[in-house]
This record gives sequence, C-alpha cells and structure tokens, in this order.
Amino acid sequence: LKIVALAGGTGAAKFLRGLVAVADPSDVTIVGNTGDDLELWGLSISPDLDTVMYTLAGRVDEAKGWGVANDSFHVRAAMARLGCDTFFALGDEDIATHLHRTERLRAGLTLSQVTDELRTKLGVRSPILPMSDDRVRTRVKTPGGWLDFQEFFVRDRCGPDVVDVRYEGAERSRVAPGVIEAIHTADVVILCPSNPVSSVGPILAVPGVLGALVETTAHVVAVSPIVGGAAVSGPAAKMMRAKGLEVSVAGVARAYEGLLDALVVDTRDGAFAEDLRATGTSVVVTDIVMADRTREIALAQDVLKSAP
Amino acid sequence: LKIVALAGGTGAAKFLRGLVAVADPSDVTIVGNTGDDLELWGLSISPDLDTVMYTLAGRVDEAKGWGVANDSFHVRAAMARLGCDTFFALGDEDIATHLHRTERLRAGLTLSQVTDELRTKLGVRSPILPMSDDRVRTRVKTPGGWLDFQEFFVRDRCGPDVVDVRYEGAERSRVAPGVIEAIHTADVVILCPSNPVSSVGPILAVPGVLGALVETTAHVVAVSPIVGGAAVSGPAAKMMRAKGLEVSVAGVARAYEGLLDALVVDTRDGAFAEDLRATGTSVVVTDIVMADRTREIALAQDVLKSAP
Repeated sequence: LKIVALAGGTGAAKFLRGLVAVADPSDVTIVGNTGDDLELWGLSISPDLDTVMYTLAGRVDEAKGWGVANDSFHVRAAMARLGCDTFFALGDEDIATHLHRTERLRAGLTLSQVTDELRTKLGVRSPILPMSDDRVRTRVKTPGGWLDFQEFFVRDRCGPDVVDVRYEGAERSRVAPGVIEAIHTADVVILCPSNPVSSVGPILAVPGVLGALVETTAHVVAVSPIVGGAAVSGPAAKMMRAKGLEVSVAGVARAYEGLLDALVVDTRDGAFAEDLRATGTSVVVTDIVMADRTREIALAQDVLKSAP
Repeated sequence: LKIVALAGGTGAAKFLRGLVAVADPSDVTIVGNTGDDLELWGLSISPDLDTVMYTLAGRVDEAKGWGVANDSFHVRAAMARLGCDTFFALGDEDIATHLHRTERLRAGLTLSQVTDELRTKLGVRSPILPMSDDRVRTRVKTPGGWLDFQEFFVRDRCGPDVVDVRYEGAERSRVAPGVIEAIHTADVVILCPSNPVSSVGPILAVPGVLGALVETTAHVVAVSPIVGGAAVSGPAAKMMRAKGLEVSVAGVARAYEGLLDALVVDTRDGAFAEDLRATGTSVVVTDIVMADRTREIALAQDVLKSAP
C-alpha cells in the first residue's frame, strides 16, 4: 500500500508515528509544510519537517510535541547574553540539525536533499519531502500588521487576532521533486490532522499539488484537526475564521472541498456526519484524540480502513 | 601611553591580561591574527581573536588557554552523531559567539565591525582589530602536502614535519581599518609572545603593516615566545625551522630583523643577550614564563619599562 501524507507539525507527527506502526514505513511518503520555516541566528530552520523527523526517530520532546527530548539550552543562554533574539527556543541538539542543514544548503544542496540526508542519519525510514525547495512563507495579518508565522505563533503565542493569512512566494514556488509523482502513484493520500490553513494550506498552495490531488486515483482522506468545535492544539480556530471557515468539521470539509473521498471525525462531532455525508463525502466517526501511542495506532488503522 | 599589541592566541592573551592590569585598557589596541581562522559547520571561527577576547573578558578556559570556561559540548556531540567533522572542539557557549559572528558577516558587516560588537558585548575595553577584513589563511606544507593551519595544529596535533608555511591571500589583503593609524600614533608597539611564523607572521604579511612598524616613532618591543631554546607552547619550533630560523631568541630577533627597538628574553637565555645587543637591539632579560597572574603583570611592566 503506497501512502502519501501531507503533514504539518505535532499533530501530524503523532499520527504518522501511529501510521508507520501499521504500514511499511518505507511505503509512507511524507510531504511536509515549509511555510513556517524561519531563519534565526543565521540558521535555516524547518520546524514542521523536524517535528515529523524527530517524532519518527523517537527523539521528540513528548511534553512539548516538538524539539529534542532532554535537550539542553546552553547555546541559547549564550545567545541571550549576546543580546540576540531568543524567542524561538532552540535546544543544543536541535541546533546541530540546523547547523548541518544550513551548511549543506549553503553548499548548494536543495532542502529536499538535505532533508533526506537528515532523516536518513536519524534512522527515519519514511521519505520526508518538503513541499517545495523554494522559499514559501506563511504570513499572518493581525490588526497590528503582517507577522511571520513564528512571530505570531511562538513570539506572540497566537495572541493577536488574525485578519488574514497568506503564503508568500507560493505562486512562484516549484513543487519539490517526487511530490506530484508520489500523489499520482499513491493508493491512499492522507491529509494529516493539521491546521488546514497554516499547515496543509501552504502545501496545497504550491502549484501542482491541488491538481495532483484532484487527478489521483488514490483514496484521499483527511483527519479533522477540529474536535468538538475547537482545535485540538494550536491556532487553527483563529486561522480558519480568518479564512471564512467555520471552526468545525464542516469547516474542515469546506477547506478541502472537492478533494476528499473521506473525512475522519471525532465521536463528539458525529452529529455533523450526516450533513457531511449528504455532500457526498464518506465520513468515519471514531476517537481521533491521540492521547497515547495506542490511540495513534488505532487512528491510523481507522484512516486506512476508510479506503475501499 | 598609547599601546598597540600584535597578538596571536594563548600566550598573547595571557600577556595582554597582564598589560591591561598596568595600562588603561582603552589605550591598548590589539591587532589580532586571523591567519588561523576557519570555517566549520558553516560557522566563521576566529580562534586567535576569540582567545584574546575570552581571556580579557575573564571567560577563558584557563586549563586549555582557549575556549570558554566550564563550557558544555552538547552541539558537538549531536554533530558527531550526524557524522560531521568534530576535530575542532567547539563548546556550546563558544558556538553562540560563532553563530553571532557568522550571521553578522552574512548580513554584510566586516570582521572588524563584528569583532568590535562581540568584544563590547563581552565587556572587553581594549579595541580588538583583526589584521584584515579579507580572507588570509596560514597554510602549512608537510611531507604529505599542504594543510590548513587548524588541520595541522588541532586535527593532526602538530605531528607532521613542517616544510614550509605560507599566508594564502595575504598579498591581496587590505589591512583592517585603524591598524596603520594605531601603529603610527602609538607610543609603544608590542609584538606579543606568540609564534613569530604562524601568529605574528600573518599580521606582518598584510601589506602596510611592516612599513608602518618601520616608520612609526613608537618604541617597538617583542617578547620572545622561545625560552631556553624551545617554544613555551605550540608548534613554534617546527615553524621557525621551516622558515630557516634558529629556534632561539636569536631566531626570534632575526624573524623581526629591522623592526625591534627592544627584545624581552628569559633569564635562561641571558647568555644570548650580549650577541643580540651587538646587533644594536636593546635586550631586557627577565622571567618571561607567565606561570600565574602576578607574572603576567610583572612581564607587562618589564615590557613597558623597556621604552625610553
């Protein structure tokens, strides 16, 4: 079974950890969001790619859902003493990843190539493809002006109201090698339980991805990141509202309109299932909150079972 | 008293720590060697500038004579796991310095500007000027071929024989802003107790420096890095021999021929003093091994007393 998963950060990573426990990891191709990439201290940082990579490598900080477990923060403390911006909490081991990525990018490798190097070195068997090797940046419009995604998300802790979201550079970006082919030849394409606006949205904004999802003969299934009318984690609610989407599984269905063969929603949202089915989308109702490893695996199984 | 000090690494740094205890630190302009600068993990590293800076900031690792005291090595351990080259032992706090330098250089600042930023942030009152903002690299010819200085010095622990030494890029390099002016307007110019070939040599190889030392009305005095016919530390002996210099205070005098008003040598080398004086150089015989802070200060006083 060839599987392609479009993935954001923490939620997607947990889901993928369940998925590679029930499917052959080398048959799972992950297409990662790079819209929230950033540069800090001259380092090229790809938070979503790394969260997926660290999680699948068994190195993620479980409590935070990102970063490396038991990491130290000595470089960061020294950067603070030098007066540098330290809102983004990079641990020492994490910094090694970014140093390596930055050095290889400057040496002329693409982000795809470096990402493949890194995940291989960390023992991750699933290919991780960035959505694009070109620079795409998710920007968030607040009453105070446009912010970089990480300024809004980390520095300002999702505090400001969100008026609009855009994917800077997306129209001119080229989809990364292998992404379109993987979607075309997949049996199942999964839109992971990630923010449809700031995690999956940037991937869909890369020219060619939407078309490939429409064209593919694969079963296309999304897992709702919304449970009981609220985001499981992160700023999905604010972002969805800014894009005119209801903060509900109906809103998720609308975000992916025309793409889905199935949508997996939580038992709490079972009441919406009938309405959604009326629109022709198959709906799977299950427990989608991944409280532990067992639930991650069970959810992955439910998602795969949605395929005919 | 306006003082200019041409400085290498550890020996120079100890001497300078004594000097700023007996002179106004802001009147001591340090011109640092950048011939042993290197790039590792994409970071721009200036070992000699940093050794002087950390020492004057009271942060140096006293046992090693370089790096930051009580530093941790978590990034390095992670880099090793990623298969990166880790021969150069960068500590975590040290890495913050290099990250900051690298980012600022990429932002378009000169090495002079970044060095001034860093020493100011670390509370060092003496201006530290790199010899040049252009790339100069000390290269060491061994029977096995040409090596970068740090490959010879750190990776190969000065093991190979030295056939020749050259300062790549020196002829085309431009002397850093302020260096020539500082030498011209100084009352005293000190050639610190550093390797005359691999530490002071690169500084003298930058066009304009040698001329300024000849022209200046300042008292020019060198402190011998050779005691009792051997280098106090490091590979000076091998390097001096490769350049046809005797490994003795006479060899040091020859390395600086035509430049010196005075040479400060150790009591163990007092026998050479008469020969040297015959060549017209004033010789100060004292205890030049800086075993503790008291000796660092006493040596600085002896050096300043050599001026008329």
